[in-house]
Amino acid sequence: MTDRIPQLPEFIFGSLSTSQGRLQQTRMARVGLFHDLTLNPIDPTDNEPILITVRVGVEIAAKAVSLHYTTDADLSLSPLDLEHPSIITLPMQRTHIEWDTLQWCYLEQWSVSIPGQPQGTQVSYIITATTTNNQTIACPYVDVKALKELANAEDFDFQALEKKYQDNKPQIYQFVVGQQTIPAWIEEAIIYQIFVDRFAPNPGNAFHTPSDRSGIYGGTLNGIRSKLDYLQDLGVNCLWLTPIFPSPSHHGYDPIDYSTIEPRLGTMEDWQKLILEAHQRGIRIILDYVVNHVSSEHAAFQTALGDRQHPTYNWFRFRNHPLEYDCFFDVPGQPEVNSDHPGVREHFIQNACIWLQQGCDGFRLDYAHGVSHAFWSVFREATRRTKSDSVTLGEITQPPSVMRSYIGRMDGCLDFRLLELLRGFFAFESLSVSQFDRAIEQHLAYFGSSLVLPSFLDNHDMNRFLWLVKGDKRRLKLAVLCQFTLPHPPIIYYGTEVGLSQLENVGRLEESRLPMLWDAEQDTSLLAFYKQLIALRRKTTDLWQQPRQTWLLDDANRVYGYECGEYAIALNANAQDFTLSFPEHWRSPQVILTTDSTILWNPQTHQLNLPPFAGVVLQKA
Amino acid sequence: MTDRIPQLPEFIFGSLSTSQGRLQQTRMARVGLFHDLTLNPIDPTDNEPILITVRVGVEIAAKAVSLHYTTDADLSLSPLDLEHPSIITLPMQRTHIEWDTLQWCYLEQWSVSIPGQPQGTQVSYIITATTTNNQTIACPYVDVKALKELANAEDFDFQALEKKYQDNKPQIYQFVVGQQTIPAWIEEAIIYQIFVDRFAPNPGNAFHTPSDRSGIYGGTLNGIRSKLDYLQDLGVNCLWLTPIFPSPSHHGYDPIDYSTIEPRLGTMEDWQKLILEAHQRGIRIILDYVVNHVSSEHAAFQTALGDRQHPTYNWFRFRNHPLEYDCFFDVPGQPEVNSDHPGVREHFIQNACIWLQQGCDGFRLDYAHGVSHAFWSVFREATRRTKSDSVTLGEITQPPSVMRSYIGRMDGCLDFRLLELLRGFFAFESLSVSQFDRAIEQHLAYFGSSLVLPSFLDNHDMNRFLWLVKGDKRRLKLAVLCQFTLPHPPIIYYGTEVGLSQLENVGRLEESRLPMLWDAEQDTSLLAFYKQLIALRRKTTDLWQQPRQTWLLDDANRVYGYECGEYAIALNANAQDFTLSFPEHWRSPQVILTTDSTILWNPQTHQLNLPPFAGVVLQKA
Repeated sequence: MTDRIPQLPEFIFGSLSTSQGRLQQTRMARVGLFHDLTLNPIDPTDNEPILITVRVGVEIAAKAVSLHYTTDADLSLSPLDLEHPSIITLPMQRTHIEWDTLQWCYLEQWSVSIPGQPQGTQVSYIITATTTNNQTIACPYVDVKALKELANAEDFDFQALEKKYQDNKPQIYQFVVGQQTIPAWIEEAIIYQIFVDRFAPNPGNAFHTPSDRSGIYGGTLNGIRSKLDYLQDLGVNCLWLTPIFPSPSHHGYDPIDYSTIEPRLGTMEDWQKLILEAHQRGIRIILDYVVNHVSSEHAAFQTALGDRQHPTYNWFRFRNHPLEYDCFFDVPGQPEVNSDHPGVREHFIQNACIWLQQGCDGFRLDYAHGVSHAFWSVFREATRRTKSDSVTLGEITQPPSVMRSYIGRMDGCLDFRLLELLRGFFAFESLSVSQFDRAIEQHLAYFGSSLVLPSFLDNHDMNRFLWLVKGDKRRLKLAVLCQFTLPHPPIIYYGTEVGLSQLENVGRLEESRLPMLWDAEQDTSLLAFYKQLIALRRKTTDLWQQPRQTWLLDDANRVYGYECGEYAIALNANAQDFTLSFPEHWRSPQVILTTDSTILWNPQTHQLNLPPFAGVVLQKA
Repeated sequence: MTDRIPQLPEFIFGSLSTSQGRLQQTRMARVGLFHDLTLNPIDPTDNEPILITVRVGVEIAAKAVSLHYTTDADLSLSPLDLEHPSIITLPMQRTHIEWDTLQWCYLEQWSVSIPGQPQGTQVSYIITATTTNNQTIACPYVDVKALKELANAEDFDFQALEKKYQDNKPQIYQFVVGQQTIPAWIEEAIIYQIFVDRFAPNPGNAFHTPSDRSGIYGGTLNGIRSKLDYLQDLGVNCLWLTPIFPSPSHHGYDPIDYSTIEPRLGTMEDWQKLILEAHQRGIRIILDYVVNHVSSEHAAFQTALGDRQHPTYNWFRFRNHPLEYDCFFDVPGQPEVNSDHPGVREHFIQNACIWLQQGCDGFRLDYAHGVSHAFWSVFREATRRTKSDSVTLGEITQPPSVMRSYIGRMDGCLDFRLLELLRGFFAFESLSVSQFDRAIEQHLAYFGSSLVLPSFLDNHDMNRFLWLVKGDKRRLKLAVLCQFTLPHPPIIYYGTEVGLSQLENVGRLEESRLPMLWDAEQDTSLLAFYKQLIALRRKTTDLWQQPRQTWLLDDANRVYGYECGEYAIALNANAQDFTLSFPEHWRSPQVILTTDSTILWNPQTHQLNLPPFAGVVLQKA
């Protein structure tokens, strides 16, 4: 019936993209000691007691479970010295037993409350358990042997797990008491993601033409600055720049130095001009910040490589110095850092604060779930002290239950779950209208206003949406219309607004990072639509701030309608025309935006013809 | 190190015996409308509001969920007429959303409270949901299509599921308000399971020698009566007789008539003499009662076969009359009954009450989870009215979470989970001491005193324990010692106490139903041990009523010790000797029972040598 787009394999959630991976994750959380980091209350304020809960899984015969905490922020973190006088140990109590059919065992929940603490207190804790045969284990713990027995025939990667849990070092959990409010501006932001090397060369220059898409195309900070008129005209009010720090790669996600700028991209002076002129136009800039790993050329790693005694040796996790160490996706050029090491903390937090002092408005935090929750709690506190309306937005490619654990630790998370829904519904048609509607409704209700969840259709790590739909701009406009009428701030990946797509499927990822289209290459009709939509969203906040209610679900015809306050949206996600009939009580609906200029509205018949893959915004009264 | 017994495949929990089956069950409970029947409070009393909860799974976009209830016990149940004036409809509210990584979706919980009702009120309810595209579904509902998509590569039996859920008839849930107390006598019972055809022929007769083990061996009620001295001497105080009703089979689990006795086994007069003489000896008798299905020779089925218009037609579930109908394990000779049909209810409850009037003390309820929970709520209420201290014990071969849903509906469930643990630890050695200890501790804590959970090592549907351990009576005695020092009433499967075993592995099940050993065939040493143990349990209730505490866990040596009040038990589940050292504060422990008469106790050294597979009971003070 529709021009069905074949579903490409997507690996947005890594190993969690498959049924097997989800099963493994589910089992892992039930075999061992598992603390999901959601406190109760989830973001405790002044003097509220804080209930901490841990799940004790199959095979763990715990006779005692203890929580050891301190409010001494200066206490060395790795390892936490349990004998230190500032450490308070609380026995946890078994508060719940439930049967788990999947694992065929009982699961226990143990809890204890930490007494209420004054605003601003940094609380650090670890959780240990003593088993009936007097083994001491620390959270997080996965009993890989038990997992093997439970999983038996299932094809799990036990070796990686065994490696990960062989040491069973206690994780130090931390949070900071005091409800940080989310800055209002980020809720109203329209974010534009700039892949710096690929956006705009210096004025008067053209992009380079490297032989390989992992080469340098020559985008710069001055190039961006020269396009601020364009961006202001487009209507966005926040830029997210991919990493601008010195780096050996075209993408910059492996910084060598966090205090300065990659010379290719510009100078500190260029930055200062950029931020000044952006702010003058009412445009904020957030920087991409990588804490999970650094470039192997980073000075701290180089000194650690050369000298085991050097203080930065412990910034990293060497398994066999200097040859083997933990690295991001096993790439030797990207050694992972130990984000709970005091030196690491100081290094990354100080540099971040300096960028805030240099005018930056906040951070997009790369691969944030690779770094401890503790780090982000402290990071947010420190950066907010430096700039009171700065924001932290995590890249958390994990399920919503994990996103939820960042409440109180970040302002928001990039919404990969919504991404999956938007691509599933508008590109792959793998969801029906009613499934899509319900999934979004549940997702929004699950989070409420506790986190900002910027929405997006694509980014630099996946196929562009327009590529997925084989260049069908009707489908793109339809999806964007939906994205922009949802409550959380939308992100536009550079070039989408002018029809930038790809030449081949994403393999090494660079395929979705082609240089920006300028001048005659731009699809001006698409751009005009984007401008209109952005202007509408900025002007008419009721469109996404009012409670959202569904008024039309037509699974057979793939037509979807919802209302926000006095506005109504209708989307025809199908290759067939559809004649919309409006509810009688909408007295005189006015079409205020369409994806397709041929849409004609007949106020007499109360009907409207929606062409294939077209959508409208109406004002009901 | 030990004479390891190879683990035989066991199918105690049917499809839930495998990892795949457990996964399927877990998924099924999360795809559709799922009500686990645990009310809150779980066994509501006089005028307590009753919270009813339902889980709405993936793919069900519910816009409304409703609970329809009535307290009119006379209302015809199938189908429940929602227009009837006595039906009250309550809208349920979504009270919780949680993310489920296994299914990769949100799960919703909807709840509503039924107002408190007076003691004795029978409350009936169904749950329906309306989806956003205006489909109405009723609980229980499994969206088999959604399950297929989630499970993809996993090897599920979708056909059987599709068949089961194709109609989606609403299940009628019922409960009766008022906390029935569990009769004290069952908590103190020592139950002896008699497979009637295989226990004792009429006095003076010998067993027949059929050519096949599914033939008739000739046990009778008079035979049992002639052995009451033996049973009294053994010390048991409750007999459970496998079905005594007319039946075409040797086992009787397919009754033709519930009001009378299989002529082979005896007459009503024989029964009356048996129950009288048993009661005179302080021995109660419970009867095996089958409600899930009947023999195809049952009059109700025969009339239904012959005439679709006959009232008993709807007692059964014909799919294609008269050829196809639902039957137990697809055996045509065992048609399943519709336990919510008023005629069925009346038939089975009336007959049960007549047996209680005839002196019977209660029922072991065969395949009870095949029958609705509603049936058992009403059954218990009615039988308890007829005989105030009668008991109902369900055969629930389901996980503990399901056993738990029978609280308030039965007095107890046969403890198949404990069976699995006992066989796992003492026969197969598939559990370590600390795993066994923790599993039992959790299991007891999970149920508390809400249900009686009779314990057993084997029954007529599985390999005898003694067969599993290749006839090693040391291991049997050790397991029995453990069983008898646990809080719930123990069951002895006939003949175990005198060494009855098997000739081959269980295939068709009859292999574990060999005729009882009498006279010279009996192992008198084993019998003496049983008598001693039974006498100790009956006399010294502290041994199992006092809180149970572990004092010794030695995983390496497989030695296990626990205390109850002033008693201590030590078990050596290993093929090596073990020297026990007692805690200093046990002043002068006295050995009061051993599995092995060679055990010598040296009060001077405070040590005791435990031979392989030996156990002791000590009095500490």
